Amino acid sequence: MPDKYSFKISQVSGNARRGVVSTSNGEFETPAFMPVGTSGAVKALTCEDLESCGAQIILGNTYHLYLRPGQELIKNLGGLGKFNGWNKPTLTDSGGFQAMSLSDKAKFHDDGITFASIHDGSSHKFTPENVIEIQRALGADIIMSFDHCPPAECDREFAVEATKRTSVWAKRGKNHFDNLEDKAPTNQTLFGIVQGWLEKEMRKQSAEEITSLDFEGYALGGLAVGESKEQMEEMVSFSTPLLPADKPRYLMGVGYPEDILMAVSYGIDMFDCVLPTRNARTGQVFTSSGPLVFRNASYANDERPLDSNCACRVCQRYSRAYLRHLYNQSEITAMVLATYHSTWFYQELMRNIREAISADSFEKFRSEFLSGYQSRS
Amino acid sequence: MPDKYSFKISQVSGNARRGVVSTSNGEFETPAFMPVGTSGAVKALTCEDLESCGAQIILGNTYHLYLRPGQELIKNLGGLGKFNGWNKPTLTDSGGFQAMSLSDKAKFHDDGITFASIHDGSSHKFTPENVIEIQRALGADIIMSFDHCPPAECDREFAVEATKRTSVWAKRGKNHFDNLEDKAPTNQTLFGIVQGWLEKEMRKQSAEEITSLDFEGYALGGLAVGESKEQMEEMVSFSTPLLPADKPRYLMGVGYPEDILMAVSYGIDMFDCVLPTRNARTGQVFTSSGPLVFRNASYANDERPLDSNCACRVCQRYSRAYLRHLYNQSEITAMVLATYHSTWFYQELMRNIREAISADSFEKFRSEFLSGYQSRS
Repeated sequence: MPDKYSFKISQVSGNARRGVVSTSNGEFETPAFMPVGTSGAVKALTCEDLESCGAQIILGNTYHLYLRPGQELIKNLGGLGKFNGWNKPTLTDSGGFQAMSLSDKAKFHDDGITFASIHDGSSHKFTPENVIEIQRALGADIIMSFDHCPPAECDREFAVEATKRTSVWAKRGKNHFDNLEDKAPTNQTLFGIVQGWLEKEMRKQSAEEITSLDFEGYALGGLAVGESKEQMEEMVSFSTPLLPADKPRYLMGVGYPEDILMAVSYGIDMFDCVLPTRNARTGQVFTSSGPLVFRNASYANDERPLDSNCACRVCQRYSRAYLRHLYNQSEITAMVLATYHSTWFYQELMRNIREAISADSFEKFRSEFLSGYQSRS
Repeated sequence: MPDKYSFKISQVSGNARRGVVSTSNGEFETPAFMPVGTSGAVKALTCEDLESCGAQIILGNTYHLYLRPGQELIKNLGGLGKFNGWNKPTLTDSGGFQAMSLSDKAKFHDDGITFASIHDGSSHKFTPENVIEIQRALGADIIMSFDHCPPAECDREFAVEATKRTSVWAKRGKNHFDNLEDKAPTNQTLFGIVQGWLEKEMRKQSAEEITSLDFEGYALGGLAVGESKEQMEEMVSFSTPLLPADKPRYLMGVGYPEDILMAVSYGIDMFDCVLPTRNARTGQVFTSSGPLVFRNASYANDERPLDSNCACRVCQRYSRAYLRHLYNQSEITAMVLATYHSTWFYQELMRNIREAISADSFEKFRSEFLSGYQSRS
């Protein structure tokens, strides 16, 4: 276990937990939502924006950073958290999901995945070992094991194979990580990923195999990939208790506010998702009463802020009418302001969740939040 | 003269002047550089960004705001400075320059200009009177007289006609402005524009005709439209003394840092230009040693900030290598950060100019600035 890594749970409310993860680049509180900094930056935001929203850890995509600017450049410039100016905890994913989803030509082999670059179509290969080495060079505080994530809609046979492969790859990656000679200096921490599709028995077996490898944290993968909300909850409620209680539990790629609240209720500690930032860039933000498509013509004269209950600086200053106008003129500032609001909204949600857990009133908070929130997802 | 409008010169250094313009939405110090907020927002920046850069007045384009969202919507939402959240002094141009330059089908008549919308090709007409009414509804603190700006490369006859027309239009617009019934409440101030191409005699006649109309401020138009730097200086040095010393003098569409310093030395008080913001979005910023094309491959590993002598928050935190990477990935954040730096750089230049005038050392400052600055314009 790296010197400075630790996870401490301070309060619980039902199965919901509040805690702190320490890394050599600082701490972050859980439950945490990690804004996605695809190529280093959270799209349209600056580090100052992220700080004022209250983000404590951000995620970088190994796939994108590996292709450009390349992990060696980032390593030479001090690692991801220094390169992008963030200087606080970072996490990188394993790259497998993007390699699969961003290339028509991606092929899985027992040894890894071959794929064509989105930039120039050049051929690349990720393996359980080189994904560790790439993330090692990128230098995030928390890195992820290489996994094979089956889509919700696939043959059972395919899902079984992907889940088995994920266990083999986890073992190979963990072994490679443990034997890397340059491991100590960066205090990186490796998390494992549980797959298992939408079947409890498959999830159970995957959880047993992955947790037997003794990672420092565990992710649930293969969710928010096309299944229903009921299926997601069934898998989260079943799988979360299978993960060690004293390690962080990370639900990858999730999600909508209601999904986060659901997962926290079962004991999930970490989340990441492009929803707040990607949707903001297409004219939709999250508000306390639900998603708001602020680009709509109905807001052309609307003097109200995006969210009357929001304390963010965008809602203190700008009207829906102005943001709609800027959006319709393709003004970058529209994307900046909308992204800021939704990023604040998610961080505020996490702050409120953590406060509610401390007050042992998580379910009350969840119920109150959802009573005013009209989900459109 | 509107109630709250005033211009007071506090210090001079040679012909350079330092002063303060008061409007009903607050003061701005001169010499002033006005960032251009085309459609309301300075592209890629927020009002908070502009404030922290030290901007005190911003410009809006009448052409763009007239087409979208329309002056009536902006009027109903409290006017430009409230609509865009800026809440500080604003200036709108007359729209003529964009009507001419953004449409192949633009036609000048003695009565005005007809043009096709950039959005849908629909036909529109600007006249000396309706341009006043449009700007009246937009509600900026300072509005501009309708003018005909001839390009540097045109027939003399064309320039003569454009300059004569500008005088006729100025008189018509001023008359219309003076007789508007709803004038008092908004305390708007109307500036006149001097044309005259690149001929001193034509400039002189235009200045005489325009200043005889007793505007509250005067702009030099028709410069930075393709002429050489020597021609620009010849016209500025000749024309500026022809404008009343007790009124603000505004050099429209200028310019490069060296142009601003030149013009201040002859007594110009106000500037606007898209250079710092537009260039930033294409990968070039202004620095104390000259323009820097930060997108270039040579900066791929460069750990230095954009400008080692700059105190802006971008230069305190981000490397050229990172900004180049973001730019090459078409990340919005690259445009945000580069625009912020160059906007800060221009405002810092104006702060230093004002300080130098107060210390009666403007020429010393100008000389020191230029000694380290390699112009590439």
